[in-house]
Amino acid sequence: MNWEEYVRKVVPYTPGEQPKINNLIKLNTNECPYPPSPLVKERLDKLRYEDLRLYPDPDASSLVLTLSEYYKVPEDQIFVGVGSDDVISMAFLTFFNSDKPILFPDVTYSFYDVWAELYRIPYSKVPLDENFRIKREDYYGDNGGVIFPNPNAPTGILEGPDMIRDVLDHNKDSVVIIDEAYIDFGGKSCLELINEYDNLLVVQTFSKSRAMAGIRIGYAFGSKKLISYLKDVKFSFNSYTMNRPSLALGAAAIEDDEYFKATCKKIINTRENTKAELKKLGFEFPDSCANFIFARHPEKSGKEIFDRLREEGIIVRRWDHARISEYLRITIGTDDEMDRLLAVLKNILTPLAIF
Amino acid sequence: MNWEEYVRKVVPYTPGEQPKINNLIKLNTNECPYPPSPLVKERLDKLRYEDLRLYPDPDASSLVLTLSEYYKVPEDQIFVGVGSDDVISMAFLTFFNSDKPILFPDVTYSFYDVWAELYRIPYSKVPLDENFRIKREDYYGDNGGVIFPNPNAPTGILEGPDMIRDVLDHNKDSVVIIDEAYIDFGGKSCLELINEYDNLLVVQTFSKSRAMAGIRIGYAFGSKKLISYLKDVKFSFNSYTMNRPSLALGAAAIEDDEYFKATCKKIINTRENTKAELKKLGFEFPDSCANFIFARHPEKSGKEIFDRLREEGIIVRRWDHARISEYLRITIGTDDEMDRLLAVLKNILTPLAIF
Repeated sequence: MNWEEYVRKVVPYTPGEQPKINNLIKLNTNECPYPPSPLVKERLDKLRYEDLRLYPDPDASSLVLTLSEYYKVPEDQIFVGVGSDDVISMAFLTFFNSDKPILFPDVTYSFYDVWAELYRIPYSKVPLDENFRIKREDYYGDNGGVIFPNPNAPTGILEGPDMIRDVLDHNKDSVVIIDEAYIDFGGKSCLELINEYDNLLVVQTFSKSRAMAGIRIGYAFGSKKLISYLKDVKFSFNSYTMNRPSLALGAAAIEDDEYFKATCKKIINTRENTKAELKKLGFEFPDSCANFIFARHPEKSGKEIFDRLREEGIIVRRWDHARISEYLRITIGTDDEMDRLLAVLKNILTPLAIF
Repeated sequence: MNWEEYVRKVVPYTPGEQPKINNLIKLNTNECPYPPSPLVKERLDKLRYEDLRLYPDPDASSLVLTLSEYYKVPEDQIFVGVGSDDVISMAFLTFFNSDKPILFPDVTYSFYDVWAELYRIPYSKVPLDENFRIKREDYYGDNGGVIFPNPNAPTGILEGPDMIRDVLDHNKDSVVIIDEAYIDFGGKSCLELINEYDNLLVVQTFSKSRAMAGIRIGYAFGSKKLISYLKDVKFSFNSYTMNRPSLALGAAAIEDDEYFKATCKKIINTRENTKAELKKLGFEFPDSCANFIFARHPEKSGKEIFDRLREEGIIVRRWDHARISEYLRITIGTDDEMDRLLAVLKNILTPLAIF
């Protein structure tokens, strides 16, 4: 016998690479191509290093208050964590304790099955239809919980509030989590439904539309009861997760609404232009409402395009899973970055004649 | 039936209060009374807000490298997390999966049973002897794991390396975690034993001797195998836990060794002076090797002293558990803060005659 017998063995999640090479065009992890609001800089300049000796506020009150005022949701219906990964992982641990499987799409955010494995939660991957759409009827049956992103990742497909409502109407006995990481790029949040459904958790993040992936803040809205259960588990795990810089700078990013809206608008414009250009090059893709496009080319393999882009200093994301192995998930960068991407793609697809 | 049936219900940990009142003398959460190294300020001034749009390095390589060079431990034997609470909680989840109970003292860090409850790990609280000492023989038996702080909290009592070695020699089949949150205040770390025992995890923190409770960094050393299991679970949970400010400022706190040593020395001096003065006032306490003193007075109840101190704007820590309800855990502050504490205590113990 040996101590290793009792080790929880897991297949770790592999995050998109964070290469340390300069001058790369990094279109692989859905970061925002623009810096955070200048108000974040102002607040950073005012951070007092002396205060770092003290623990942060375990309730993250200042940040929660800012979110409360912005989203018009009472403070006791808001939960914050170290990125939406932290928030959703806590939600898995808190809410998914049934013997029945939790349900999520077969093509979706790759962390869901990782968390289910980690916490030994039974799960079932529900196939999307042939157009990568969620079939709502598949979520009507008895289950231990439901989670999907809206827009879904990596497809970018947005579902309307009526579909979310329908899924909720068929799921009163388990918690339903809607992961709205990409909702600010053209979708409508289902936030207001938390007043009607006390088992709905709506999760958002600072990592995409708020341009703050480096600060690690995620947040969730739900009924008072739901949030209170989540907080109990969080306080059992680690009372002081949000550090002082995170609390101070996070609030600043929310306060500057004008900058936020302008950033989202720029990204949406660039996305729509990129769609038009990709179409001209023959790419096929579901209509994305996120800050990425999930595209394949009928005449060139995903792997080949991926490798050629990389040779040219452009990194996108690709998975080996059978159903999506021909697809590339391309983050929307600046207009200049997309121009360069499109130029390189053109070259890859129409090689120069040999003289 | 209802969704609440499947909720993981826990009794949440209550952290020491972080009051928002000014001019308090805060001796309740073992923070450092001195600011972090000036190098932390320098590094803070250089932080680029633009970079916050990008995810942090999931491997925290820069911080791990700094720790590796400082402690002369290979990088693949180091794990970092969001405070030592995050590190130890991950270790519970990773290593304590046996049906046998894990063992820890009855009087110790209050999070251990909270994590055990959270993750449904069987546990047994082993009584300290009448002088609050750990009886090493109690840890010889079959178990699912062992954890205790050294020095122990809230007693402050330090065990020598021979005792740690003895416990390890009797526990080859389960993981042993030594929580060295307070080791820098006069103890000798058992770090070098990781080369002999591949089941030993040594945990330290930036929150006490490094004066960085507000930045949330904990770290652990162990065999390559042990650390690799821990990383797998961590990457299953959340790839990007350490935010950019944390990585940058954490490294700075390690680099300034001179400042670190001077700070520890000041705190140790103040502690020894405070011990002498408390003794004169009739207090009884185990000899502390930490940045706090765990004291009771034979003639005044712990609760009464606690309340009276609070009225005078001095906050210390107290628990209602039967065995220690007469004790106060008093964090070592600056000399001025301790002078004020001692003056108030003197008043409490020898009230003015009524004219």
